[in-house]
Amino acid sequence: MPHKQISRSVQKELKRARVARLATVDGVGHPHVVPICFVYDGLVFYTAVDHKPKQVKAERLTRVRNITATGRVALLVDQYFEAWDRLWYVLVRGRAQRVEGTAEQQRAIRMLQKKYWQYAQGMLGKDALVIRIVPERVMSWGRV
Amino acid sequence: MPHKQISRSVQKELKRARVARLATVDGVGHPHVVPICFVYDGLVFYTAVDHKPKQVKAERLTRVRNITATGRVALLVDQYFEAWDRLWYVLVRGRAQRVEGTAEQQRAIRMLQKKYWQYAQGMLGKDALVIRIVPERVMSWGRV
Repeated sequence: MPHKQISRSVQKELKRARVARLATVDGVGHPHVVPICFVYDGLVFYTAVDHKPKQVKAERLTRVRNITATGRVALLVDQYFEAWDRLWYVLVRGRAQRVEGTAEQQRAIRMLQKKYWQYAQGMLGKDALVIRIVPERVMSWGRV
Repeated sequence: MPHKQISRSVQKELKRARVARLATVDGVGHPHVVPICFVYDGLVFYTAVDHKPKQVKAERLTRVRNITATGRVALLVDQYFEAWDRLWYVLVRGRAQRVEGTAEQQRAIRMLQKKYWQYAQGMLGKDALVIRIVPERVMSWGRV
């Protein structure tokens, strides 16, 4: 149970952070990384494809295609300060999967709407594509 | 020449940003992502392994091992705002390589010291391991 290893202060930052960066990789080993909104329930992470403008349909987004192809992700939560002795980051490596048409999808959407007022105000549909990230390794660095 | 496609406003953000997130991938397709300090000269990006505390030697850092193994990277520059209509990001995909024992390494270190007062004050040695990132594809999203 990898989550047992996560300290209380790291758990707190993972719950509090408003943005994370999600790295994925395609079937031929090309990495990709985007900023995401997300929620952490203490065990797994959820992120959704929301109504922020996209050039393509959810299924064709690179992050979604990469997750379908390889399922391997790295999720970074960090904060930048000019005082470098305050720097910290948490790196979560694990597996990601699409969550569709289930109670889990609806629960994830409710959690995202509770965390982000922007989602509560209509930026996230009930049929939004949800991605579940299951951590396998979590490491932290710096002041956290 | 991929850089010709980069708009002036994107170039400006790439030069101004104090932090980026660097995604790499190992030889078996596991992604990794860390926050980095970097400099962009209008053509290529440089980042260095600096004197911030590390648990292992520069050569053994995951980002360095991954770059040695596959050379494929994705570099993300973005900024988070609660007003989501202000969100933007720039995603650079390309190849990375170590730069050692050359005038290019010394030039990169000088550029990094000029951009970051923390580096100018001793956080970066003259023998620091420098990584050059050559962009192949640059895409931007949102208010940039």
